[in-house]
Amino acid sequence: MSIKLVLGIDIGGTNTVFGLIDQEGNEYLMSSIPTNSNQPPEDLFNRLFLKFDELTKKINIDFHLVGIGIGAPNANYYKKTIEYPPNLRWGYVEVENIIKKFYTQPIALTNDANAAALGEMYYGAAKGMKNFIVITLGTGLGSGIVVDGNLVYGNDGFAGEIGHTVVFPDGRQCGCGKKGCLETYASAPGIKRTVLELLSKYNYESKFRKLSFDDFDAKMITDAALEGDEIALKAFDFTAKILGMKLADAVAHTSPEAIILFGGLANAGDLLLIPTKRYMEEYLFHVFKNKVKIIKSELNEGKSAVLGAAALIWHDILKK
Amino acid sequence: MSIKLVLGIDIGGTNTVFGLIDQEGNEYLMSSIPTNSNQPPEDLFNRLFLKFDELTKKINIDFHLVGIGIGAPNANYYKKTIEYPPNLRWGYVEVENIIKKFYTQPIALTNDANAAALGEMYYGAAKGMKNFIVITLGTGLGSGIVVDGNLVYGNDGFAGEIGHTVVFPDGRQCGCGKKGCLETYASAPGIKRTVLELLSKYNYESKFRKLSFDDFDAKMITDAALEGDEIALKAFDFTAKILGMKLADAVAHTSPEAIILFGGLANAGDLLLIPTKRYMEEYLFHVFKNKVKIIKSELNEGKSAVLGAAALIWHDILKK
Repeated sequence: MSIKLVLGIDIGGTNTVFGLIDQEGNEYLMSSIPTNSNQPPEDLFNRLFLKFDELTKKINIDFHLVGIGIGAPNANYYKKTIEYPPNLRWGYVEVENIIKKFYTQPIALTNDANAAALGEMYYGAAKGMKNFIVITLGTGLGSGIVVDGNLVYGNDGFAGEIGHTVVFPDGRQCGCGKKGCLETYASAPGIKRTVLELLSKYNYESKFRKLSFDDFDAKMITDAALEGDEIALKAFDFTAKILGMKLADAVAHTSPEAIILFGGLANAGDLLLIPTKRYMEEYLFHVFKNKVKIIKSELNEGKSAVLGAAALIWHDILKK
Repeated sequence: MSIKLVLGIDIGGTNTVFGLIDQEGNEYLMSSIPTNSNQPPEDLFNRLFLKFDELTKKINIDFHLVGIGIGAPNANYYKKTIEYPPNLRWGYVEVENIIKKFYTQPIALTNDANAAALGEMYYGAAKGMKNFIVITLGTGLGSGIVVDGNLVYGNDGFAGEIGHTVVFPDGRQCGCGKKGCLETYASAPGIKRTVLELLSKYNYESKFRKLSFDDFDAKMITDAALEGDEIALKAFDFTAKILGMKLADAVAHTSPEAIILFGGLANAGDLLLIPTKRYMEEYLFHVFKNKVKIIKSELNEGKSAVLGAAALIWHDILKK
């Protein structure tokens, strides 16, 4: 009997990862190719499906492809398009039209954070939950909001951009063109900027006085904090305060059971999770106090978006 | 043939309004009694159902009661309870258990802003919309969030408390015990507080220099602004700026088609709506710009909560 599998594709700025996933989240194939966004998007899908064909022949499994799920930056769930993603050079891409030339199976598309949320719901820390939020803390801050067991897409398919809510109206310049967005504080580059701000403010000794902005990363701030570096510790406290305050706002909108943190900065673990929870509680409206968990993702970082992209198709099938 | 009608009940701090409503929002009866929350809640329902019986005999319509929908402060949709509302003295009320003694029909319960949102969806400005937010600007700031045609209740039934998101972490004392909540700025008392703050900051001539805080209301600020009072004009600008900024945050969460303003302060009309829209656009993440309408409620203020409470039952029936 042939196994039903979904092709999950995670399109990133540098690499595109893809895998064959069954309904339980088991991988039957996992591979990647360079995205090469200086070439037209057709080129990526050409190379991807060629490699996919090669690999499926090799694994020699009798399977039935039930659909193709894709996670990509600035992806629109309704229109099945990718629209002017900042780290890809493609502009407006009608993904469905391209894939139709290769496959007749159903296609679903959403942004990477939404895909990660579905991945957590089916295979990760949100199993069994109907209301939760996934926050990805990487180069930016992405978010996927699940209400009553479904992703919130909103009127235009772009809902869930908590990273671009306002913290300080005249705050840090954001890549999006606005000022003071949450992701300029709570993200891997955000905590680096905080280290510089704190070095400018305090006279504490710190290893970061000897390093240029381009020479350190979020992991080094985590390590320094664990070694007791005062600036690194204060940077985590500041990040947690801002993030906790804005997560309290997010709770006031959709009242989730849990908020799941994912991605580079979330790897700091309790160093970030414990103070973020404490600050969130401080800013929560009383009816929500002591109800909302903050937990770390249970998905493998490299594979979560592929699992989530595949879950897009499984979710649509299971809803019917 | 008997008509199918719903009893809609809006429990307020002073009065409780109730009405018989058909699926199209037509009223067959509308009345009110004092809430008297110094008496036990059983007393209110006793008096209400007694009066309801009397009135239905008088109107002499052959109807079939299909359900009872209730809007009340701090109402929990899942548990059918009212939980420690600030302006009622009841504490924790198991509403369903009380009503069961009188009626066997289905009961639905939610807070007044959520009820108003359903009212707008079925009978008002949100007809035909699947994603929108209703903001009530009265003594406080309430909100009802609709995603994909359903109210967002969240994990605990209390979702949609945008009035208690944080504007300034060390800002104005809020009735909820926190500081700097949106409703301390954008509400009828909020704009009054803003007038005082502006009088303390500027030297402009203003009629409000001759009035104590207790002697003016939001309507007088509207009138003064229309007459060109500099402080009143600045008060609307400040209120619109804060509200616009936080509505941009709300859009980033659920990406609504429209935000509908309702209640006392919304009666200022374009004086509030136009600058709120302008400021919201300024703070919106680029993908949402020029997509989200800000409009005024189309429901009669006195009856909207009753219509919305009745819509709770109609909505549950129509979903099945």
